[in-house]
Amino acid sequence: MAKQKFGLTVNKAENFSSWYTQVLVKGEFLDYYDVKGCYILRPNGYFIWNEIRKWFTNEIEKLGVEECLFPMLIPKTFLEKEESHISDFSPEVAWITKCGNEVLHEPVAIRPTSETVMYPSFARWISSHRDLPLKVNQWCNILRWELRGTTPLIRSKEILWQEGHTAHIDKEEADKEVLDILDLYYRMYKELLAVPVIKGLKTETEKFAGSDYSTTVEGFIPQAGKGIQAATSHHLGQNFSKMFDVKVQVDDGVSDFVYQNSWGMTTRSLGIAVMIHSDDKGLVLPPKVAKIQVVIIPCGLSVKTSTEDKNKLLKVINRIKNQLLFSKIRVHIDDRDNVTVGYKFNHWEIRGVPIRIEIGLKDLEKNEMCIYKRNTGTKNQYTIDDNVTEKIQLLINDIHEEMYNTALKEQESKILYINNIFDFVKKLDENCILMTPWCESSQCEEKIKTMSTKFEDEKILIAGAKSLCIPFESRKIEHETCIICKSACKRYTLFGRSY
Amino acid sequence: MAKQKFGLTVNKAENFSSWYTQVLVKGEFLDYYDVKGCYILRPNGYFIWNEIRKWFTNEIEKLGVEECLFPMLIPKTFLEKEESHISDFSPEVAWITKCGNEVLHEPVAIRPTSETVMYPSFARWISSHRDLPLKVNQWCNILRWELRGTTPLIRSKEILWQEGHTAHIDKEEADKEVLDILDLYYRMYKELLAVPVIKGLKTETEKFAGSDYSTTVEGFIPQAGKGIQAATSHHLGQNFSKMFDVKVQVDDGVSDFVYQNSWGMTTRSLGIAVMIHSDDKGLVLPPKVAKIQVVIIPCGLSVKTSTEDKNKLLKVINRIKNQLLFSKIRVHIDDRDNVTVGYKFNHWEIRGVPIRIEIGLKDLEKNEMCIYKRNTGTKNQYTIDDNVTEKIQLLINDIHEEMYNTALKEQESKILYINNIFDFVKKLDENCILMTPWCESSQCEEKIKTMSTKFEDEKILIAGAKSLCIPFESRKIEHETCIICKSACKRYTLFGRSY
Repeated sequence: MAKQKFGLTVNKAENFSSWYTQVLVKGEFLDYYDVKGCYILRPNGYFIWNEIRKWFTNEIEKLGVEECLFPMLIPKTFLEKEESHISDFSPEVAWITKCGNEVLHEPVAIRPTSETVMYPSFARWISSHRDLPLKVNQWCNILRWELRGTTPLIRSKEILWQEGHTAHIDKEEADKEVLDILDLYYRMYKELLAVPVIKGLKTETEKFAGSDYSTTVEGFIPQAGKGIQAATSHHLGQNFSKMFDVKVQVDDGVSDFVYQNSWGMTTRSLGIAVMIHSDDKGLVLPPKVAKIQVVIIPCGLSVKTSTEDKNKLLKVINRIKNQLLFSKIRVHIDDRDNVTVGYKFNHWEIRGVPIRIEIGLKDLEKNEMCIYKRNTGTKNQYTIDDNVTEKIQLLINDIHEEMYNTALKEQESKILYINNIFDFVKKLDENCILMTPWCESSQCEEKIKTMSTKFEDEKILIAGAKSLCIPFESRKIEHETCIICKSACKRYTLFGRSY
Repeated sequence: MAKQKFGLTVNKAENFSSWYTQVLVKGEFLDYYDVKGCYILRPNGYFIWNEIRKWFTNEIEKLGVEECLFPMLIPKTFLEKEESHISDFSPEVAWITKCGNEVLHEPVAIRPTSETVMYPSFARWISSHRDLPLKVNQWCNILRWELRGTTPLIRSKEILWQEGHTAHIDKEEADKEVLDILDLYYRMYKELLAVPVIKGLKTETEKFAGSDYSTTVEGFIPQAGKGIQAATSHHLGQNFSKMFDVKVQVDDGVSDFVYQNSWGMTTRSLGIAVMIHSDDKGLVLPPKVAKIQVVIIPCGLSVKTSTEDKNKLLKVINRIKNQLLFSKIRVHIDDRDNVTVGYKFNHWEIRGVPIRIEIGLKDLEKNEMCIYKRNTGTKNQYTIDDNVTEKIQLLINDIHEEMYNTALKEQESKILYINNIFDFVKKLDENCILMTPWCESSQCEEKIKTMSTKFEDEKILIAGAKSLCIPFESRKIEHETCIICKSACKRYTLFGRSY
């Protein structure tokens, strides 16, 4: 089988979508698979998902959420109970109809999400107010047969995610949790992936099917000029509890339906981080969660180097490695002798390793090492001393901050406040997303979408903008009117093209 | 919905299978679900699976195994490539044929195991000997549409497991790994679940479809008188690498197919531990992995107790709790005031919590606490001092040892060496499994099976015995002949009824 060309053959600015694919595949983050829309998460990528899993599980444990696992199969009758829910999901639901050569008496669905899987059990488990709040979370795979095009991590058939499901005695407690979880999502993106996201409320047209309201953290991909839903936290009200008869006794003989939330975050988070941080040399991984945080490369060795010199160098390198390992910094020495130093540089750059330490014999004479930062592409000489670990730890934090701030600055420069449809379309085409005075009617949203769609003949070339969210933080709105119908507006809505 | 009766209504000796179900459900370890053969793993159960996951992942990381995740969908052509493999699995394979209302052009299967999912990628990833060994593992769900009856955790449609897949340059390295992994399975059962298992080789009739040979750790369930496959580690030889063209260049221009292993362990491990340790009062969880290791119950409080006394007691209890938490011992205080102390005892006994600390006002006067061990049902008074944590830690280790030794003793008493078919059948009916001189032919195994089957009219009442494994450790065989054909035997094979 032909080997892939070593470096990237396209660049981020010119052909974003094929650049993205190359970055993932050549960086060994994921690989393609023979079922369209399904992807292989390789160790370089899966490691980050595991780090997210550990961090988030630890955080929700503090909120009293317990881990569990429900089946992936759904009986038809369960799935169809909540009408608005099923109508949204049904076209994407995969059905098992056959086992071996036997046709099943009744087909079963693979979960596209687990509200309808879990809530019949909630009804059995909950009776007294002492059974509340009930809070469970599971990390699992779901299946949504995407009919639109698929993009690795961003939109795929099989999706890895966590889904939290909670039941509460009153709305206030549930409302609070919706925001507590949203804050965790915000922090996960910021603290682990160095990705800035925007907290907000989903509009009525975009909210989760079956929810009372949905909150979201929205990401932004500058080169694509697109918003992207990064994680969502929903308040389901009593919609599902009424359908699945999840009741609790509130007073003697009087019972009421519970208030429910559900919230989820997927491996899409990895895709967002890769899109935002990576560059024309390949992956740039966020340093706190990268599988390998530091690679050490011995330099300047050749066949002429004496064994003594070589051993001296390797001894120092190994000492540094052990110091770093001791402080749980993930480090790898690349001491291959069949490839050049330049080859190794490329090898680890394309795989996104945040820090590279180069040490040659000349450095050793000066007791120095050269440190290369993948995110900025800059090099600096450092003294080799007992504080190596501390230096690297600081550097990891610095790189993380730099990556976050760079992404934030770029995002801020591309979120514009506009007040008319002319500017709206113009700025959209400059890859911006837009804080828009809008009356919040679906008719006006439909018009905005149509007016921002690019057609070629009668085919849609570029899809129009939709409402991404109503950000919790925004400029105070004053005397603004809907850019379509000119009726008064209470708040800005963030519009944009989107994934 | 009617509430379940509080305690168990059957006992272990009399009706093992309905006892098992009650223990799991009333102990809130798992719950039933509306798709037959699928179960809900509740927090009390899932926690242990997570502990196993953490321990095992850490151990295989030391062997250089990396975590990844492949898709759950398999194209028909992949699945059918290895003939003996597919012929074994095909009757159990579930097929997705429809999405929404659309019939798929080509049905896709849900993985029953991932050899055929992964190895086409291995072929792409491996070319030079430097790409070897390739070692990956994934924790995921698989689907096997069981046509026989299902038993929670033991035999179900959806199964949670880890599956490791490795490729090696030569057979020796692969052979060694097979046993390294088997040893980890043995240790996991012993060190985490307090379950003794027997290492051995699977017979030709029982080996994994497509392997050169399979090794196993076999468990034993005394009350059922049944052996149970607890985890397996297979050497696949070049069978799959030839089918999927996984080749490596060994010399200039000369290439050879790689040698492969695969190995797996499922949530069946949880079922085995529950079956072995639990009793007529409910679950008995292995103390090192139990979600709650210690429950503290304030005793002797009533409406007459002064607030001062009550606070004094709760203060001491909270101090103990914090001491334990500090040492990462998982502790819970049951300070509910709406149920009796007796109710609480039952509540935590049925849920299998290994250690109960009872402290009343009278204990407090003597600066004492009463500690109840769930496994033995025994109580002892202890002084409350600064060494509480140390005491509990020792107790956890003691309980673990006791549980392991009790299970081992019972197992040893039920594994008998026999040398004729008459004793074979007799002892089998006394719930033993048997070290049997057998010629290792499938004809003789078939006869053994038939002769040990219990019929009622023409229906099979109790299935006959099959070969469980050829244990690595056994008595030296001397002058023994096959219990059927009387030909000479080189080694004993363990036979038994089985799950």
